[in-house]
Amino acid sequence: MGEGDSSAKGLTRRGALAGAALFGAGVAFDRVLPSGEGKSDGAQGDALERVEFYGSRQAGIATPSPEFLHFAAFDVTSGSADDLRELLREWTLAAAKLTAGGEYQPTPLEAEAVPTDTGEALGHGAQRLTLTFGFGPSLFGLDGADRFGLAGRRPVALTPLPRFTGESIDPARSDGDLCVQACAENPQVAFHAVHVLSRLASGAATLRWSQAGFGRTSSTSRDQPTPRNLMGFKDGTNNIRGEEEEAMERFVWVQPQDGSAWMAGGTYLIARRIRMLFDVWDGTSLEGQERVIGRDKVEGAPLGQREEYDAVDLEASRGGEPAIPTDAHIRLASPHNNDGQRILRRGYSYSEPTDPGSGQIDAGLFFICFQRDPERQFVPIQRRLAASDALNRHTLHTASALFACPPGVEPGGFIGEGLFA
Amino acid sequence: MGEGDSSAKGLTRRGALAGAALFGAGVAFDRVLPSGEGKSDGAQGDALERVEFYGSRQAGIATPSPEFLHFAAFDVTSGSADDLRELLREWTLAAAKLTAGGEYQPTPLEAEAVPTDTGEALGHGAQRLTLTFGFGPSLFGLDGADRFGLAGRRPVALTPLPRFTGESIDPARSDGDLCVQACAENPQVAFHAVHVLSRLASGAATLRWSQAGFGRTSSTSRDQPTPRNLMGFKDGTNNIRGEEEEAMERFVWVQPQDGSAWMAGGTYLIARRIRMLFDVWDGTSLEGQERVIGRDKVEGAPLGQREEYDAVDLEASRGGEPAIPTDAHIRLASPHNNDGQRILRRGYSYSEPTDPGSGQIDAGLFFICFQRDPERQFVPIQRRLAASDALNRHTLHTASALFACPPGVEPGGFIGEGLFA
Repeated sequence: MGEGDSSAKGLTRRGALAGAALFGAGVAFDRVLPSGEGKSDGAQGDALERVEFYGSRQAGIATPSPEFLHFAAFDVTSGSADDLRELLREWTLAAAKLTAGGEYQPTPLEAEAVPTDTGEALGHGAQRLTLTFGFGPSLFGLDGADRFGLAGRRPVALTPLPRFTGESIDPARSDGDLCVQACAENPQVAFHAVHVLSRLASGAATLRWSQAGFGRTSSTSRDQPTPRNLMGFKDGTNNIRGEEEEAMERFVWVQPQDGSAWMAGGTYLIARRIRMLFDVWDGTSLEGQERVIGRDKVEGAPLGQREEYDAVDLEASRGGEPAIPTDAHIRLASPHNNDGQRILRRGYSYSEPTDPGSGQIDAGLFFICFQRDPERQFVPIQRRLAASDALNRHTLHTASALFACPPGVEPGGFIGEGLFA
Repeated sequence: MGEGDSSAKGLTRRGALAGAALFGAGVAFDRVLPSGEGKSDGAQGDALERVEFYGSRQAGIATPSPEFLHFAAFDVTSGSADDLRELLREWTLAAAKLTAGGEYQPTPLEAEAVPTDTGEALGHGAQRLTLTFGFGPSLFGLDGADRFGLAGRRPVALTPLPRFTGESIDPARSDGDLCVQACAENPQVAFHAVHVLSRLASGAATLRWSQAGFGRTSSTSRDQPTPRNLMGFKDGTNNIRGEEEEAMERFVWVQPQDGSAWMAGGTYLIARRIRMLFDVWDGTSLEGQERVIGRDKVEGAPLGQREEYDAVDLEASRGGEPAIPTDAHIRLASPHNNDGQRILRRGYSYSEPTDPGSGQIDAGLFFICFQRDPERQFVPIQRRLAASDALNRHTLHTASALFACPPGVEPGGFIGEGLFA
C-alpha cells in the first residue's frame, strides 16, 4: 500500500498517476493475478487476487462475478469535450491503480495536503476489483444539444430503451451520461472505488445515482455454483459463461461489422432495478412459485426434469398440461422464443431501508445484462416478458439505464479514446 | 438443509417448530460450533460455523462481530398481550433454527403449502448468524396508553433518549416497539433471517424500518484486527472486548441490583444512523482529518504516540499545543472525560442510493452500542460530543433508537419471558 515507501513522499499528483500507469504496464495476459500489495484481514484469503484492468476488453464483463457491486451513474456538468477527455484519462489511471490493490495516491503524503485516496480500503488488497465504464445516450446529445460534438458518433444500438408495460421508472435513479460498475469480493473495496472516482470527477461530472448490490445473482463462469436470488430460486443456470468464447462474440461483444468502429470489442450494458413484491410472493404456495418461474425451487431443475442443468424442454407435459406453464418466466425468456437470442446476465441482489409507512421490504434484483445489440436482444425479450410473464405479479421495474461500454484499453491510453479519435 | 430428509415431509408447522426447539437443546456451552447442516459455496469455508442461540445471555452482543448486519424495527399492530407473547415464542423457535444454519421449515414440503421459509439462504449454512431481540420504550406505553399492561414493568433505564444538539432525526426511521439485530458473515443470510421473522410477525407486528450494514466498524474480540470506517480511520481500537468479563459486567450487562429483575443479564441497545458528509471531509487535509479524530490515519495511533494500541495520552503536547486537540473526537469520547464510563460499540458501515439531485454519497456509520444504563453512559457521552466534537462538521445523526435487550433464553423458553412472568 506504499505505507512504508518513503520515496513516495513528495510525489506530485501527476507523478503518482504516472506511477499507476507504469505499474499496470508490467502485467498483460493472465487476467487474474495474485495481488502483490495489500495484506489480508484474514476472512477472505484468496480474495486478495487482482483482475488485470488493461486489455483488449474491459474487465467486469466476461470475468467471473465477485460477491459485491457498487454501481454509479454520473452527469457531466462541464460543457467541454476537453474536460470530458481529461476525466476519462484520470479515471483510467485511477482504475488501473485501484484494481491492482494499490492506493490511488501513496500514503503517507504531506500532512497539509488533501488525500486523493479516501483511505477506507487501506489494507484490503485488490479483492478482485473490476471497474467497467460506459457512456449513456445523453452524452451524445441531450434535448437536441450536441454537448460535446459527439452526436455523429452515437451508435445506432445506443438508442434509449422504449417504455415497457407495467414498469414504474424513477427518472432520478435512471440513465446518466457516464457509468462505473465496481465489482469486488468486499463491499468496502467496491464502495471505495466509486468514492475515489467521484472525487476525481469533481468539477467535470457529478454523481447522479448509485446502487450497492450483494450476492451475485448469476453464474458467469463454469466454476461458480448457481446462486439464489431473494425469491429463493437459483438464477442464471443457462446464462452465457465468460469462457464460452463463441457465444461471447456472437451475443456480447460488438463486432467490427456492426458499425461505430470505436465500439468494436465493446458491449452494451442495461441495468434495471427490479423490486420484488414479497407480500404476494411470500403468500404463494411452493407449487405456485415454481410455476411462475418454471423451475423447481430446491434443485433448480426445469419443471418436468430432475437436475438443475437438465435441458429446458418446452414441449414436456404433465397431466395433459405443459410442464412449464405458458406464462412461466423461463419459457418466455428462453432463446427458443426469442429468435435464438441470448444475453449475459451479471446482476446482484439489493436491499434498502423499508419504505416508511409501507411495512414492506424494499429489496430485489439489480439486473445487469450485457449484449451486442439491445434492439435485437434485450428489447424484444423484455417486451415479451412485460406482456405475459407470470413473474410480473411479483416484481416491479423501478429504474432503467443503458450504456455503451467501449472496448478495453492498453497502458498509456484511456477508456473510450476511440470515441475521440 | 433437510433437503434429503423425507421424514420431514408432512410435518405440521407446529411439529417443525418443536423440532427446532429440540435441535437447539442438544448444544449448550461452547458458543461457536461447526455447522452440522448446510454446504459451502466455497468462498467462506469457516464462515459456516454457527453461534449458539440459547444461553444465559443473548448472542450478538459479546460474541465477535461478523461482517454483515441486517437490523429491523417492528411496530406491534395487535393490541393483545397474548399475541405479543405468541410472536416472541415463534421468533424464539425460528431464531434457534435459523442460527443453527437450518431451514425454518424443512423442504421439500407439500407443493400446495405456502413455504414458511422463504428459501434464499438455502445452501449457505449458519454463517455465524446471531439474532438479538429488543423492546422499545413504546412497548410499555404509547401516547399515555398502556397497550399490553406492561407500563409498570418498564425499566427506568428505558427512558426515550433526549434530543441532542445538531441532530436531524427522521422519526420514520427511528424507534419501534421491537427490534431484531441480525449479524452474519453473509449479507443474504442476515437478510433472510429478517425476511423470515417479518413473515412470522404477520398479523401481530409490521416492519417499521430496516437497515443493512457491512464491514463491522469495531473490534469486539481481541482476535479481530481493527477495521476502518468509511472515513478511512481505524475505529474501535479501545472498544470493550467481549472477552473482558469484568468490563462486560460493569459496563454492559444489567445487574440484579439495577432494578427491573426481568432485565438482569440483559443490556440496552442504542442505534444511531450517522451520515458522513463527505463533501467537506474529503476536502480536508490529512493533518486536518487526523486532528478531528485525534488519531493518525494510516497506523491508527493516538496523536503523540506511535502505535495503534499505545495508550491515549490526553496530556501529551506538540509544539506547545495539546497533541490531541481539545475538540478531537477521541478526547471527548474518552472514559477520562466521562466519569470512567465505557460502552460496547458494535456498529456497521452503511451505503445507500445517492439522494436524487444532491450529487452526494449517502453513506456512513450505523452506530450500535450496548450498555448497562444509557442515562449514565451513552447520554452524557453523546451530550459532550454533540456540544463540542470536531467531527460534528463532518457527520449528521439522522436516525435514533433505544431498545431493552432482555437476557438470553434456554430451550423451551422464549425471549423476554421474564417480562410476562
